[in-house]
Amino acid sequence: MSAQSPSIPRGTRDFGPAVVARRNYIFGVIRRVFEKFGYAPLETPTLENLSVLTGKYGEEGDQLLFKVLNSGDFAKDVTADDLSADNRSKRLLPKVAEKGLRYDLTVPFARYVVMNRNTLVFPFKRYQIQPVWRADRPQRGRYREFYQCDADVVGTNSLLCEAEIVLMMSEVLTTLGLTDHTIKINHRRVLGAFYQALGGEGTEVDLFTAIDKLDKIGREGVEKELLGRGFSAEATERLFDLLSVGGDFEEKIERLLAAFATAGVEPDNASGYKGLQDLRQVLDYLRSFEFAKWQNLEFDVTLARGLSYYTGCIFEIKINNVNMGSVSGGGRYDNLTGAFGLPGVSGVGFSFGVDRLYDCLEELKLFPEAVATTTQCLIANFDAESEVAVLPVLRQLRAAGIPSELFPEAGKLKKQFQYADQKGIPYVLLQGSEERVASQFKLKKLSTGEERTMSLEEVLAELAR
Amino acid sequence: MSAQSPSIPRGTRDFGPAVVARRNYIFGVIRRVFEKFGYAPLETPTLENLSVLTGKYGEEGDQLLFKVLNSGDFAKDVTADDLSADNRSKRLLPKVAEKGLRYDLTVPFARYVVMNRNTLVFPFKRYQIQPVWRADRPQRGRYREFYQCDADVVGTNSLLCEAEIVLMMSEVLTTLGLTDHTIKINHRRVLGAFYQALGGEGTEVDLFTAIDKLDKIGREGVEKELLGRGFSAEATERLFDLLSVGGDFEEKIERLLAAFATAGVEPDNASGYKGLQDLRQVLDYLRSFEFAKWQNLEFDVTLARGLSYYTGCIFEIKINNVNMGSVSGGGRYDNLTGAFGLPGVSGVGFSFGVDRLYDCLEELKLFPEAVATTTQCLIANFDAESEVAVLPVLRQLRAAGIPSELFPEAGKLKKQFQYADQKGIPYVLLQGSEERVASQFKLKKLSTGEERTMSLEEVLAELAR
Repeated sequence: MSAQSPSIPRGTRDFGPAVVARRNYIFGVIRRVFEKFGYAPLETPTLENLSVLTGKYGEEGDQLLFKVLNSGDFAKDVTADDLSADNRSKRLLPKVAEKGLRYDLTVPFARYVVMNRNTLVFPFKRYQIQPVWRADRPQRGRYREFYQCDADVVGTNSLLCEAEIVLMMSEVLTTLGLTDHTIKINHRRVLGAFYQALGGEGTEVDLFTAIDKLDKIGREGVEKELLGRGFSAEATERLFDLLSVGGDFEEKIERLLAAFATAGVEPDNASGYKGLQDLRQVLDYLRSFEFAKWQNLEFDVTLARGLSYYTGCIFEIKINNVNMGSVSGGGRYDNLTGAFGLPGVSGVGFSFGVDRLYDCLEELKLFPEAVATTTQCLIANFDAESEVAVLPVLRQLRAAGIPSELFPEAGKLKKQFQYADQKGIPYVLLQGSEERVASQFKLKKLSTGEERTMSLEEVLAELAR
Repeated sequence: MSAQSPSIPRGTRDFGPAVVARRNYIFGVIRRVFEKFGYAPLETPTLENLSVLTGKYGEEGDQLLFKVLNSGDFAKDVTADDLSADNRSKRLLPKVAEKGLRYDLTVPFARYVVMNRNTLVFPFKRYQIQPVWRADRPQRGRYREFYQCDADVVGTNSLLCEAEIVLMMSEVLTTLGLTDHTIKINHRRVLGAFYQALGGEGTEVDLFTAIDKLDKIGREGVEKELLGRGFSAEATERLFDLLSVGGDFEEKIERLLAAFATAGVEPDNASGYKGLQDLRQVLDYLRSFEFAKWQNLEFDVTLARGLSYYTGCIFEIKINNVNMGSVSGGGRYDNLTGAFGLPGVSGVGFSFGVDRLYDCLEELKLFPEAVATTTQCLIANFDAESEVAVLPVLRQLRAAGIPSELFPEAGKLKKQFQYADQKGIPYVLLQGSEERVASQFKLKKLSTGEERTMSLEEVLAELAR
């Protein structure tokens, strides 16, 4: 076999030891917060039936699903007719592939809830930290394989869940050191009331879609898009009056209540009044929780979130002073499991994007130094005699819980120090023949170059710190 | 859209909270041992190029690879000629798929080493805990998606690595409570010497393959297979003399040395003498390490291991008194990266099968009870007033690191206790109006039914234990 120069698929990544350690640090923080709030872990298969995935993410999503070829003689049912069809790939697909790769964690979660509805205990609070795959065009910060960290609770309408989501978001970010952040919150019904207040022109979806782009294309761009979608100039004017409501959380609620009344928004349940009531209830819960980070929480009426299945509160987190999209988002949905035959299951959830959190922590130099290292101590290997003599020492270091290694080959110390240095090992332990006679060791701290002679007990005490 | 009844692909599994917690317990034990021995984590992509995977696992392996359809118009290059070919699927494959799912952790590791050979520091010790996919026929204990836990070190011939693998295997099993196990060790060159001692009939591969089946088909079956493969009756007789060598580790080495000399095995480096020397060196290292579990270590001359790339020591672990195949295996290889253009990289590694470990722990009831639970305390929700009053308490429980929840809806206590019970939550905290006035709580331990009235400080102290 001729040797080949290997590569990995575009948009995928190898994670070496230092990066895995840093990613695991982030996962660990998120996992501990999720568990502290009573969320329990769920894992679903990488492979899902295409019947489960298809049609859940819009037409673009269907395109971006990775499909897996059937095993064995996959092409056995393909006919010449299939090939001469206009859209041959579309025609071939159901004949050659019935499985795909997980595209997000929400649809598999809904599938799991439906399949296990008779044994699950509701409200069901689950978190899920797993990779997903999208055949997107790879670019900076966008990968074809990436992790999502989701927490959802289904089977309750309680707004306590929304309040706890704010607490969880805040605790994760604070624990990671990302203290300068903004948790934006809005409510789909508030946006629905905006639509009503504009006089019922155009469609609600077009309105939400346009508002969602405000960050990217600015007021002018949104106005232009709305005018093109059948909204009048007067309506778009009124929209920006509503969107520019000022004040703190409580004041915005009051002002919008007044504005809705003026605009003739009907005071029924489906209207924005319910949305504002929900938000006030979330606010009250947070006060009772003695939530302290008010400066990080913002009622942002321009927050729309793209996904169509949200029906209640919606969330998004921005890390301030970092040039990066949102690191987290979520919201309440009323009918996630409807597509699988189980209507009426309300839930609320959110998701952290690990790649973006990673980039923020790196840019702001917030990774703790200790995270990167595994081995704490390398024992130098002088010769066959010293090698045998230090094995019981190595055993004792490990028994004390100190990750340690003996360089596996006797030889030049320079090479061994290089090894420790490149692997980020903080200490090198040396015992030459002289020290051996005296039952002593030299412990060298690589960061300072400091070298001290000490007994094994002292070594253990120093490394255990 | 009409509702569908969802399912998951054959051979895949959902892991609910209790199972994930137990699996994470196993992963955690393995990870801590690997790290204590200086192995650092690596993660490679799920998707690999088929050019990397194909031809590395034999013809059967190529069949069992999951292949991923190219994105977009995948069928654009398929011709009518392809369809009329005898083996149409084989002919179509390179035109419609260029990526596949990770089949094991060894080939991606070799690929990673080759791609990063200029920046890696050798010896490179990595561990990898990730799922792999095989389009095998699903059956009891065999899945299409399952995790492997590998540790390998490449770039050194030192037999210290083999000795440390025995230590790691022993520590993982002991920590998991699987104390009654046998770590079998053998050496490919010992088997090679057997082949020489039989007089050079048949082929070495046929001999190894037959010995590998001894467990399953017994002596008679192996004899029959060897006779059918060109070995004489006399040679198979001599083989079983060698295979039946008795004694402890050291005695077996001595007796085989003598047997090799009698049988005229040539005393060169490629022969079994080197294999026996290696084994003795591993034994000496273990003695210097003050290894204590000699009763768990066996020099098993019938151990062959199927994989063709092993060239030195080979390992396998059997849990005694459990009807289950090996839970771990591995060995030394001389040329893992040769297929990717980097010859001469020697390494040694081993792998744990998590599903089998899980089944053993379950069968022997060895999972610690605490593993299954996440939430420690459920606060009962009496009514709106009580709900608000206990939120600061919930905050304090969590601040003390105690995973806790408030039932999100006021209502029947029976339902709330059922929730706690089914979720495995050990404590329910209650504060009715009477207790609220007295700043007291009732803490109920579900396992005993015991209920005590206490202050918040006492609750925190009780739950922190």
